Amino acid sequence: MAENTPRLSFTCDYEEGAHPAILKRLAETNFLKEPGYGYDEFSLAAKDKIREACGAPNAGVYFLIGGTQTNATVIDAVLRGYQGVVAANTGHVAVHEAGAIEFGGHKVLTVPQERGKVSAAVLNQSLLDIENDGSYEHMVHPGLVYISQPTEYGTLYTKAELEAIRAVCDEHKLPLFIDGARLGYALASPANDVSMKDLARLADVFYIGGTKCGALLGEAVVIPNPDFIPHFFTTIKQHGALLAKGRVAGIQFETLFTDGLYEKIGIPAIRNARKIQDALRASGYELLFESPTNQIFVVLENTQMAELAKSVAFSFWEKKDDTHTVVRFATSWATRDEDADELVRLLKDMRLA
Amino acid sequence: MAENTPRLSFTCDYEEGAHPAILKRLAETNFLKEPGYGYDEFSLAAKDKIREACGAPNAGVYFLIGGTQTNATVIDAVLRGYQGVVAANTGHVAVHEAGAIEFGGHKVLTVPQERGKVSAAVLNQSLLDIENDGSYEHMVHPGLVYISQPTEYGTLYTKAELEAIRAVCDEHKLPLFIDGARLGYALASPANDVSMKDLARLADVFYIGGTKCGALLGEAVVIPNPDFIPHFFTTIKQHGALLAKGRVAGIQFETLFTDGLYEKIGIPAIRNARKIQDALRASGYELLFESPTNQIFVVLENTQMAELAKSVAFSFWEKKDDTHTVVRFATSWATRDEDADELVRLLKDMRLA
Amino acid sequence: MAENTPRLSFTCDYEEGAHPAILKRLAETNFLKEPGYGYDEFSLAAKDKIREACGAPNAGVYFLIGGTQTNATVIDAVLRGYQGVVAANTGHVAVHEAGAIEFGGHKVLTVPQERGKVSAAVLNQSLLDIENDGSYEHMVHPGLVYISQPTEYGTLYTKAELEAIRAVCDEHKLPLFIDGARLGYALASPANDVSMKDLARLADVFYIGGTKCGALLGEAVVIPNPDFIPHFFTTIKQHGALLAKGRVAGIQFETLFTDGLYEKIGIPAIRNARKIQDALRASGYELLFESPTNQIFVVLENTQMAELAKSVAFSFWEKKDDTHTVVRFATSWATRDEDADELVRLLKDMRLA
Amino acid sequence: MAENTPRLSFTCDYEEGAHPAILKRLAETNFLKEPGYGYDEFSLAAKDKIREACGAPNAGVYFLIGGTQTNATVIDAVLRGYQGVVAANTGHVAVHEAGAIEFGGHKVLTVPQERGKVSAAVLNQSLLDIENDGSYEHMVHPGLVYISQPTEYGTLYTKAELEAIRAVCDEHKLPLFIDGARLGYALASPANDVSMKDLARLADVFYIGGTKCGALLGEAVVIPNPDFIPHFFTTIKQHGALLAKGRVAGIQFETLFTDGLYEKIGIPAIRNARKIQDALRASGYELLFESPTNQIFVVLENTQMAELAKSVAFSFWEKKDDTHTVVRFATSWATRDEDADELVRLLKDMRLA
Repeated sequence: MAENTPRLSFTCDYEEGAHPAILKRLAETNFLKEPGYGYDEFSLAAKDKIREACGAPNAGVYFLIGGTQTNATVIDAVLRGYQGVVAANTGHVAVHEAGAIEFGGHKVLTVPQERGKVSAAVLNQSLLDIENDGSYEHMVHPGLVYISQPTEYGTLYTKAELEAIRAVCDEHKLPLFIDGARLGYALASPANDVSMKDLARLADVFYIGGTKCGALLGEAVVIPNPDFIPHFFTTIKQHGALLAKGRVAGIQFETLFTDGLYEKIGIPAIRNARKIQDALRASGYELLFESPTNQIFVVLENTQMAELAKSVAFSFWEKKDDTHTVVRFATSWATRDEDADELVRLLKDMRLA
Repeated sequence: MAENTPRLSFTCDYEEGAHPAILKRLAETNFLKEPGYGYDEFSLAAKDKIREACGAPNAGVYFLIGGTQTNATVIDAVLRGYQGVVAANTGHVAVHEAGAIEFGGHKVLTVPQERGKVSAAVLNQSLLDIENDGSYEHMVHPGLVYISQPTEYGTLYTKAELEAIRAVCDEHKLPLFIDGARLGYALASPANDVSMKDLARLADVFYIGGTKCGALLGEAVVIPNPDFIPHFFTTIKQHGALLAKGRVAGIQFETLFTDGLYEKIGIPAIRNARKIQDALRASGYELLFESPTNQIFVVLENTQMAELAKSVAFSFWEKKDDTHTVVRFATSWATRDEDADELVRLLKDMRLA
Repeated sequence: MAENTPRLSFTCDYEEGAHPAILKRLAETNFLKEPGYGYDEFSLAAKDKIREACGAPNAGVYFLIGGTQTNATVIDAVLRGYQGVVAANTGHVAVHEAGAIEFGGHKVLTVPQERGKVSAAVLNQSLLDIENDGSYEHMVHPGLVYISQPTEYGTLYTKAELEAIRAVCDEHKLPLFIDGARLGYALASPANDVSMKDLARLADVFYIGGTKCGALLGEAVVIPNPDFIPHFFTTIKQHGALLAKGRVAGIQFETLFTDGLYEKIGIPAIRNARKIQDALRASGYELLFESPTNQIFVVLENTQMAELAKSVAFSFWEKKDDTHTVVRFATSWATRDEDADELVRLLKDMRLA
Repeated sequence: MAENTPRLSFTCDYEEGAHPAILKRLAETNFLKEPGYGYDEFSLAAKDKIREACGAPNAGVYFLIGGTQTNATVIDAVLRGYQGVVAANTGHVAVHEAGAIEFGGHKVLTVPQERGKVSAAVLNQSLLDIENDGSYEHMVHPGLVYISQPTEYGTLYTKAELEAIRAVCDEHKLPLFIDGARLGYALASPANDVSMKDLARLADVFYIGGTKCGALLGEAVVIPNPDFIPHFFTTIKQHGALLAKGRVAGIQFETLFTDGLYEKIGIPAIRNARKIQDALRASGYELLFESPTNQIFVVLENTQMAELAKSVAFSFWEKKDDTHTVVRFATSWATRDEDADELVRLLKDMRLA
């Protein structure tokens, strides 16, 4: 790397490779001959372990490769042609998937959110507004509700909030899809009261993120009632989302779901994120909000931001005003305590200066 | 594995994991922090090495994940809405991609082939027939020619044949796309006279297969003149084909393109396929044709087939008549000589019986 | 028209405007204010009359504009993403719709035919071949069977043949869609034993062609059990197939379904087609086959064809050999007896010469 | 009609059939035999007359059937897969086309508007925001700017405003598409300073609305430089937008473009709209804004609205608050002066009461 690269990085939660247990397992199984397309023994075992973790013994479990792909494939499998997916206007599907949902022929019907979260009341009102529109027949019909846990802002839905959203979905006869790309960071957060069993109970389909939670790649789609999406295998294939060497995902998820690794993997991320957030607050920085997971949003003066960027890589989030900017620090399962400590020191020093 | 699993398997060329050099490299780079989406140092280095191997210093090089996905993404990026892709009626895009091309809105215009190969003459005549059809304006227009090297039957185009196809494409003002999902097995075949430099000279876009040639996953798309497909990055993202951890593909392709590994990796496959084919011929089995690469097609009596299946896993290809079946034996970069030797013994013994 | 235009034309069955009763009705209702989008009184009345003619009192009836559009909209409304439509390889949807079905994301799965007709046995075998393919999960699944009555060759399915096809559909749990773009010419043919009531009994969805059978434009889609396609209105809108002035289709179909006009409108076409075919046969021309409807296919020597083209416009169909060509003569509801008589004279004279 | 139907209707501008000159022409040409698909003599003549009216002698001119269809077909023909269309958040393509643009695979990128109009400054800033977004490569790229003249609110762009928008498009290298579904009402408005020649000079593609401006159906797409959209005929066919009897559109547009009928046809609509708007203002009703064309938006107390609805049909537009509603009165080319006078009387009486 270039010599002027910052020595610390809190840019995102997919900067490292995979949890060492995964690499070890890939190596020790490497020359076993296995069938392709998810019929290997590791995928079969991983699916069983996920079903158990979700308390959903009959669930359909499928391994896809990445988040945008998983969202597009699931949404396309669920919706009929005249339907669209309802999502927060900050939802990943609405903004940062290069039109993958529209490529599949569907509109994203955006609704207002707060810090990435859609409330049951706002969702209900938005659905009523559409259903009661005099031109309803000339408009895209809602066909699925999409939310993320944690959200794109790292915030969490409580169990009560999810139950309220589920009730709104039931009222409007809409299925619910929960994007868990960063689910590991929810599960490791003390603020969280939503288990995978809750997700399996409340969602018609959800996914357990691997790419951002310790795998090289991979997302595990869970369909608690498998009849909800018939022939999903073929839809996955059609979307180019089927791994020929299904073992690559299977081995990773089997490892993540052995000895409860997935539920613990986010602990270092949360521990270090708390440490950073506490230091920021203590030093008088303006937090955008108190984050319960691994993404910390803080307002910096532009001069501070420039100074800090010499030593630390982070993400530009948005301009606040002409002299201030919101930036994001993200920790991950692989964040080292000493790196977080050093960031804390830098932030304190800068504040004093 | 179950105890009644055959002890040998020649089912396909993606039964194992990855070349050990790849696993080693993944492990030793695991905790380096790298940017996502293909901007990591390994991807950048891999792209340079591929450009050099292809003699295409300005080429756009992109890493996608699997074959169906790569075909669908490239074809969709090249075609306009009113155009279709011309392919052999046995082409992977025509048959075994679950409608991925049509999902993107495009028809596959099939043309006759022999053992998977489309001749320049047949291609030219097929294109003339379409262009001269009185209803041409009411029909899908050819917009791209797709061929595979090796083909789905493991056969090879010679350099002269490819040049003739290129000339037909030029005559009809059509670009040429070459699917190299199994390219490693062409490059390792003594029968082959087409180099990667030839592909870069003759095709407008082609890909170098990783999944079937020693990688865990990954296909490297090469666009010799990068202006041929503008904004391909965004199209890749839209198709769900962008790896967040681009390093996973980058590290693999950098390894495959270091010290000429990719051009050698198919050698064990070819050596063992030759051995098996020679034994079959010597023992009087009916070969479907003489295969130059790693897939051997042979006609078995159904009773023989059942007997053999007790000891060896292979692929059913097609029914020949009521008492005979065509089956396929595939070798791979990971095939062990001793396994091929044992298959040879079994085949000989069975014949004598 | 240019002075060297042939004075007779048998090119196709949509060369004239509309039946005079339609124009009269358009004029006399012109300034009545009516709601748009098919809620006008004429559309409502026309739908009732069609339901009655079809013996399908609950049928959903929708007016679309043209054949390609109707096929694409119906097929897209019926199929799920992973499914394709099964059609004769000569089917309109397979060849002459510029990829409209693929634009909607679906593959056309072609099956062999004879003179445009698919037999129940061939259909059954084709479906079995797909269902039993070892790669079925990796392939497009059949989701709908499409046939045309009359076919693109003007041939007719008998009631027994349709019932056999229906039985095959039931066996494979597939719905049946019948394209009746030229239905008026079937209904007027003495060879026909299939009524609109039969179509409503045997098909899950079919359409009654207006454009080629006396209307300016318009096709009436009939869904005997309206639950078969929910929210079809919105799908029609999405496909750009919804007339703002729905009255334009409504008035036409109300007229066509008053006093049984639709069932009689093809009589002049059939009468004159018989006359032409009989003359051709009597004069020793080689008919491609005996046509029961309004399209006559005959083999001409190329010199004959050139001579005839001086006086008569007709359609080139296909090259037979280097010196012979298959051409088509089409009559319509508007064909004048004296024009057919003159064609007969010309054909006889030419033969004698 | 039912006896309790209001005796007046100002619901929309497509409640009547066609201008009588069109019906007369359809009748007198009815039995001329003409080729299909737009090659009839009337279509050819109409195209020439439109080229002349637009001062665009080389323009490609195509007749499609309705507005949603035309928008979807043009937008799909212009955009590449990774691009979206930029439109006002009130744009017809954004809201009321049942997802037709998304069905074609494209996102509608909405920008803020005022009374349906997008200002050059807002457009420029919106485009800059997208282009400068750090995630631009992961987002849909703007590929076309869509505006309507008049807008969905009946407001008009001035020539200066259109020139400013054109300059922004040029700055961002984006083509401009103008939806003229109600263009006849712009051309007849004294407030308008934009001619068809201006549209042909400023837009890359635009359309001249027939359905809402005196035709039974039909929209004329004009591509001043025909190379801008190659093979548009085939795209039209693929979208199900090609009339088999092209004469139906051709005859109508030839009539509308003979003796300047199209430029005059909106005069009764504008005259009566002015009369209604003046009466509303004079009687103290709250206009939403001063409308320059044939759509008048006014705020009514809900009790007033209910009273008025007994005698007049109009459109509910949107709820203003718990006791007030915005409603729309639309006039058309066929509005009779005496009906507008009666509405004026009713409005005045109600106000006095």
